[in-house]
Amino acid sequence: MRGAERLVVGVLGASGYTGAETLRLLARHPKLAIGPVCANAQAGRLLAEVFPHLAELGDRRLEAIEAVDWNACDVVFSCLPHGSSQDVIEQLPARVTVIDLSADYRFRDASVYEATYGVKHKAPARSRRAVYGLTEFAREALADADLVACPGCYPTATLLTLLPLVKAGLIAADRLIIDAKSGVSGAGRGLKEANLFCEAAEGLHAYSVGNHRHAPEIEQELSHAAGRPVMVSFTPHLVPMTRGEYVTIHADLVAGADAAAARAALEAAYAGEPFVHVLKPGAVPDTRHVRGTNRAAIAMVADRVPGRIILIGAIDNLVKGSGGQAIQNLNVMMGWTETLGLDLPALFP
Amino acid sequence: MRGAERLVVGVLGASGYTGAETLRLLARHPKLAIGPVCANAQAGRLLAEVFPHLAELGDRRLEAIEAVDWNACDVVFSCLPHGSSQDVIEQLPARVTVIDLSADYRFRDASVYEATYGVKHKAPARSRRAVYGLTEFAREALADADLVACPGCYPTATLLTLLPLVKAGLIAADRLIIDAKSGVSGAGRGLKEANLFCEAAEGLHAYSVGNHRHAPEIEQELSHAAGRPVMVSFTPHLVPMTRGEYVTIHADLVAGADAAAARAALEAAYAGEPFVHVLKPGAVPDTRHVRGTNRAAIAMVADRVPGRIILIGAIDNLVKGSGGQAIQNLNVMMGWTETLGLDLPALFP
Amino acid sequence: MRGAERLVVGVLGASGYTGAETLRLLARHPKLAIGPVCANAQAGRLLAEVFPHLAELGDRRLEAIEAVDWNACDVVFSCLPHGSSQDVIEQLPARVTVIDLSADYRFRDASVYEATYGVKHKAPARSRRAVYGLTEFAREALADADLVACPGCYPTATLLTLLPLVKAGLIAADRLIIDAKSGVSGAGRGLKEANLFCEAAEGLHAYSVGNHRHAPEIEQELSHAAGRPVMVSFTPHLVPMTRGEYVTIHADLVAGADAAAARAALEAAYAGEPFVHVLKPGAVPDTRHVRGTNRAAIAMVADRVPGRIILIGAIDNLVKGSGGQAIQNLNVMMGWTETLGLDLPALFP
Amino acid sequence: MRGAERLVVGVLGASGYTGAETLRLLARHPKLAIGPVCANAQAGRLLAEVFPHLAELGDRRLEAIEAVDWNACDVVFSCLPHGSSQDVIEQLPARVTVIDLSADYRFRDASVYEATYGVKHKAPARSRRAVYGLTEFAREALADADLVACPGCYPTATLLTLLPLVKAGLIAADRLIIDAKSGVSGAGRGLKEANLFCEAAEGLHAYSVGNHRHAPEIEQELSHAAGRPVMVSFTPHLVPMTRGEYVTIHADLVAGADAAAARAALEAAYAGEPFVHVLKPGAVPDTRHVRGTNRAAIAMVADRVPGRIILIGAIDNLVKGSGGQAIQNLNVMMGWTETLGLDLPALFP
Repeated sequence: MRGAERLVVGVLGASGYTGAETLRLLARHPKLAIGPVCANAQAGRLLAEVFPHLAELGDRRLEAIEAVDWNACDVVFSCLPHGSSQDVIEQLPARVTVIDLSADYRFRDASVYEATYGVKHKAPARSRRAVYGLTEFAREALADADLVACPGCYPTATLLTLLPLVKAGLIAADRLIIDAKSGVSGAGRGLKEANLFCEAAEGLHAYSVGNHRHAPEIEQELSHAAGRPVMVSFTPHLVPMTRGEYVTIHADLVAGADAAAARAALEAAYAGEPFVHVLKPGAVPDTRHVRGTNRAAIAMVADRVPGRIILIGAIDNLVKGSGGQAIQNLNVMMGWTETLGLDLPALFP
Repeated sequence: MRGAERLVVGVLGASGYTGAETLRLLARHPKLAIGPVCANAQAGRLLAEVFPHLAELGDRRLEAIEAVDWNACDVVFSCLPHGSSQDVIEQLPARVTVIDLSADYRFRDASVYEATYGVKHKAPARSRRAVYGLTEFAREALADADLVACPGCYPTATLLTLLPLVKAGLIAADRLIIDAKSGVSGAGRGLKEANLFCEAAEGLHAYSVGNHRHAPEIEQELSHAAGRPVMVSFTPHLVPMTRGEYVTIHADLVAGADAAAARAALEAAYAGEPFVHVLKPGAVPDTRHVRGTNRAAIAMVADRVPGRIILIGAIDNLVKGSGGQAIQNLNVMMGWTETLGLDLPALFP
Repeated sequence: MRGAERLVVGVLGASGYTGAETLRLLARHPKLAIGPVCANAQAGRLLAEVFPHLAELGDRRLEAIEAVDWNACDVVFSCLPHGSSQDVIEQLPARVTVIDLSADYRFRDASVYEATYGVKHKAPARSRRAVYGLTEFAREALADADLVACPGCYPTATLLTLLPLVKAGLIAADRLIIDAKSGVSGAGRGLKEANLFCEAAEGLHAYSVGNHRHAPEIEQELSHAAGRPVMVSFTPHLVPMTRGEYVTIHADLVAGADAAAARAALEAAYAGEPFVHVLKPGAVPDTRHVRGTNRAAIAMVADRVPGRIILIGAIDNLVKGSGGQAIQNLNVMMGWTETLGLDLPALFP
Repeated sequence: MRGAERLVVGVLGASGYTGAETLRLLARHPKLAIGPVCANAQAGRLLAEVFPHLAELGDRRLEAIEAVDWNACDVVFSCLPHGSSQDVIEQLPARVTVIDLSADYRFRDASVYEATYGVKHKAPARSRRAVYGLTEFAREALADADLVACPGCYPTATLLTLLPLVKAGLIAADRLIIDAKSGVSGAGRGLKEANLFCEAAEGLHAYSVGNHRHAPEIEQELSHAAGRPVMVSFTPHLVPMTRGEYVTIHADLVAGADAAAARAALEAAYAGEPFVHVLKPGAVPDTRHVRGTNRAAIAMVADRVPGRIILIGAIDNLVKGSGGQAIQNLNVMMGWTETLGLDLPALFP
């Protein structure tokens, strides 16, 4: 399939925000044709009714997964919730390349998944083999992947910001404190009181304090990079904005390292990267400046407290943190230009 | 003056948000009569034109400071910016009790003020004597104060959350990491591009990363409580909401301490406090639940990372972080019931 | 009961926004004691868990309606949805005075109610006798009422703005065009996709175009005032704010009338009213300036188009449009000072 | 120039929102190369500093207008404020095609401009000849234009919604009532108190009631279409959202016309239009569904009041209401595909 000129892609879970965003991006990809668009709970409805902003996709209807002939599909993006995603993926024909946006195949060790998500894994071996699709660090592995597990949105922002420094051994990987902030779209389109406008506007609160599900995912990757098990403090907050994810990370430099070395490591890691931008000294990332794009903006600042640095990463949770990175991964898998379909300008103001 | 039945109060800097909020609260205080309301740049304008929500205050006009006979005033609340505030306060007659909401008298050591704010202090000795008005920790000193320096909004939320634990020696005071979030009103009513709706809505960014002015103020008080000099990492963020301030603090327990002891210390410190509420286990503070009130909501959660706890504090920056605490301080100074004029319900949703 | 010194009040439907707001106001009313607080779907839960901002109401639990001894209650505020409200109200003992905030008893002619709401009325005779509690126009009737039907939020803003002019015969009552805008709390706390933050923030849309349920209610009262049946064009919009309701009304002056006469009629109608303020020429109402209060701000402007005027009314939908007006009505019924418990300052910014 | 393969375009007033949006769109236009980017007040600064979301435009600096050799430029988009725009445009070499986004050349009769904007017109004859660039109604004229005056944002939404019906004589053109709502970006990036986050969030107010500057512009075009002078009632409101413009128009059908005929006229007028979509019966426009796009969404609903219809139009004020329509006009002038550079998906949520 690598190098193919045109593929047919299906989308599972198309009635949620992740599904909608994936479709928005797919619609403009020059080498992808949108095939079946599934959302069992809304099967039969017009996509343009469920998501009027996708009117350009025409009179397409949402389908039930069971009603689709998957053999006519080359690639499937699964935007289903964890648990449901593996149920469907394990039933797809082997010819279909799967890009999973859920948590189901992110863990090399399925028992960590099971402990974290409280769901039995149906295919632990496949989870072990799946490629963890943090694109900038996964290009080689993606070339041969048959299943890609796209990182969670928080892990994407966090790992892009931290990995170069952990790999270079410049910061104490076991003393990291990650304070994260997300827009409300990160919680999905499900009907929960906490996501009502009147509950989420004009205020702020932390959630899952001390035990968020993305911590073990971050730890898996940092431990791998550090070469030893590490734990992180990770505290997310819900911010009254629709899109955007922001991590502010407090790190101790190891003895002998300084802020300049940390900056140099970040700049070297991302020199030439189309989507990851290390900001110039003095500039601070802002979710507004990456809104609607697949970009990550990263900054490093020396703290007043000697020996500490502050690292900041900003992404659009629905693009680089979800549908955009998924397509970026497919582009790499296919040997295509990595920015294909993803060269969107940021929407500001 | 202590025990007086009724005082006349003046407000300096009444055309900003802090001034307006102080007036909103003063208007309902049973023992205070509003005297001169000053805002030099807008002198002569009707208060109800500058702040139509204060229509109930009638046809009062803003005055120039120089035009007022301050001898007819018992108390002055200064809501002027730092620098300007000391200029005016040092000219007031000695009979006037001053509650300063600016940073001008918060530092015992004026050289720290000068280094932090880049302004020469006119009255270092008075600054040394001023009472740092974090009410719950200043009641004794307030009884004899002639000048009260109200804490900054971030220091208020931070210190209320930390002081009981630092005083009890339960957490490592020199490894504290404070991630703070503020609504836009914290930046005042001044015309800055960053505070425009289109720049501040629907997104998030950190600011003053690594060097915010409130860090030295927090350190002064924590050092005092710890009995030795400490530094803190303090990183504030601007959140698309009008009111509210939120601090998420990461602390290491000292050897021998545990989360239960930390909780017990917080609960003991604030048992019976009318305005500081330690939430039950499982509850997380939310700025929405204290909006418009003088309350602080505080929580403590044991982190997944052994030996660490997460402390959270939420206040309304314009009330407990500003005008409300100022009035609370005056109530204490006068020997009045501390909640006088401050028994407002929270506005939710 | 009139002139009683203290009453016990119960609240039905206390887990919605209207219920919460009624409780927020009741908590500070000097002559009312909060009795049973009911919400069948959440019976048994702590009120402070369902609405943490009401923490001051202590360890009170939500109760099931059936579990309450209503004979110990003097007054009941029903914040139940239409349909459910009459079901419960018709079962209450006769001694209980009822203030209904739903639509159930607003129509003198139950068949209009039935056509509008698609619900059979259980007590058409009682609906005919109920007092339509637009307080400023209902004081006499309220003195003898046993059941008060509080107006809808849109009708409140609309009728306060229009009634003096229709009564005076200054505007063409059958050519009125009412363009209304509401914050999201007007839609309640129910779980609907349209009320999710991501669906309601950062955008605007009209709804119920051409057939909103509040049009017949407005027409009932305008027809009564005009002395002949009138119809109105009424188009509501959902605005990304939590509280606030705004009506912009386009009216044709009748022959011989002019804008000055219209202004004079409004000013005369509301001179001395504590809660209805006709703004000075040049000032425009803003929902922010009445937020959290029982006030209505009204303005009249002569249009560029000769013979037309533009009328604007702004209220807080949860206060004057709901819980506040309900308490104002009770104050009138009891012969108490009308502002009792309602002298709240506006929360701005 | 018509049919050219590639043009160099300059942008005047590039430090405002309109300028930024024009640049965002130009950056992706396959036949346009961005030349000089001017903003006198910020000349010398990096564009990426002034608008970090445009980082993709590289290390380009803002220039002073006087410093540019305009002979190297084929087309200029002027995003300057009215008054300033004509000052600069009248100095440009004749070879430069001008697309003016200000109000300066929108009026055939310069005296109307002067009365409306309080500014003397420097080139009344040129204003008379300028093409009023409401693209869908200006294609023929655009082919020969040397100067295009892009419509205001409100007139764009209003005229697209009304023109087919006024031209067809189906509605009473002299009884139109236009209730308009705009996001805050419509007010530009200038520093005004009313545009601060704390003043514009969480509330709503009308402005320029009875005398907004866009009314005469709308009237010019409607009068032209109606074949006789007409006046309109036009009342705009500021809504707490960044982008989006919404007009709700109340119209009387003429004798003999009905809602079906009105719908048919709209559908016929816009059949095949790439950017103007008449929604199906039952669907209501939403600014969210056109955000970031050059689309207009239009709906027509029969009112409950016989003989009246409600017309609704929604656009993104910065795209179809500004930079997008400007580029659409250039595409038409050049004989290019009209959607070039404008095939952007809507950003939702």
